[in-house]
Amino acid sequence: MKLFQAIEQRRAIKHFEPNAKMCEADFTQMMNAVLLSPTSYNIQHWRFIRITDTKTRLKIKEAAWGQQQVEDASEVIILCADTQAWSDRPERYWANADHQTQAILLPMLDTFYTQKPQTQRDEAMRSCGMAAQTLMLSAKALGYDTCPMIGFDTQAMADIIKLPEGHVISMMITIGKANKAASQRGGQLPLSQVLMDNSY
Amino acid sequence: MKLFQAIEQRRAIKHFEPNAKMCEADFTQMMNAVLLSPTSYNIQHWRFIRITDTKTRLKIKEAAWGQQQVEDASEVIILCADTQAWSDRPERYWANADHQTQAILLPMLDTFYTQKPQTQRDEAMRSCGMAAQTLMLSAKALGYDTCPMIGFDTQAMADIIKLPEGHVISMMITIGKANKAASQRGGQLPLSQVLMDNSY
Repeated sequence: MKLFQAIEQRRAIKHFEPNAKMCEADFTQMMNAVLLSPTSYNIQHWRFIRITDTKTRLKIKEAAWGQQQVEDASEVIILCADTQAWSDRPERYWANADHQTQAILLPMLDTFYTQKPQTQRDEAMRSCGMAAQTLMLSAKALGYDTCPMIGFDTQAMADIIKLPEGHVISMMITIGKANKAASQRGGQLPLSQVLMDNSY
Repeated sequence: MKLFQAIEQRRAIKHFEPNAKMCEADFTQMMNAVLLSPTSYNIQHWRFIRITDTKTRLKIKEAAWGQQQVEDASEVIILCADTQAWSDRPERYWANADHQTQAILLPMLDTFYTQKPQTQRDEAMRSCGMAAQTLMLSAKALGYDTCPMIGFDTQAMADIIKLPEGHVISMMITIGKANKAASQRGGQLPLSQVLMDNSY
């Protein structure tokens, strides 16, 4: 599928075919595409929790206030991030770079993130956002639909997936075969209202 | 360009052809694609500051610690968000929905965002992340390269673009014609290290 088609056809789908499966080859192709999304300093701090267990899926549905698409989707993925990944063996993020480059990057990373919890958290949300859009467009190109979700009890979700300290949940994405099309787009603001030249 | 090609070929480019321009039709097509990225409740809280003024561009380069790609890029866009957009005439985000749907959505929005500054900020970073990836893939499909940037003095940047209260800067993207290819990818973590089944 062409890029612009995927962008235009991607809509948040809330009604999935309950018996549809995503084939493993498609899942892997989608996730490998996701891993090509950018992260600052290539820290790749995203972590993806794929819900394959039926009981866990139902707990997650409950944490998401009973939203049916969580039960009916072919796949459910929780997008999380390790906000401390920048300090966890960072050399591995630049394994292919020469030692000189590594020697420049290491202190930059320290300066940028040390004792800056808001910067670390912003980065987690931003990177997961970029990864999420890659995931949703890839799913679309492979013939699936998605729903990006933030409507859930974050603490309940953290308990279910055993979220470790220093990690955050960014969002959830359900993936499946739509059995009801999305409504027309809600009411898009024109470009002129959200694009400004040089300053507000 | 096909979606997966765009994903694979998108790299952070730091060296742009200084005299290259992005034609206006391409810019508009790219931005219109960006506006099809999802936002929660369709609040479309993103705001894009396009730097067209040369003096402003040089100030931004300075705020970005002199990084040359800011000067040489064909376009520079600062991705911001209005963290209070959820409370600013929200009916317009669902103008095409019926009154019943609007009546359900309004109190949901209030409950979700009222007096939750971290939720508002997370949402800004996440939405700008999704928009950013749409922007970078669209630019790639149109024959341009991009560099996503967070390496700048946020306060200096806010002053330059006259960022209003309640708004945040998420990131900057430079767009142009590459005159030096990216190095090989830094050191990608295998999927098995970032994907988990059901829980950490």
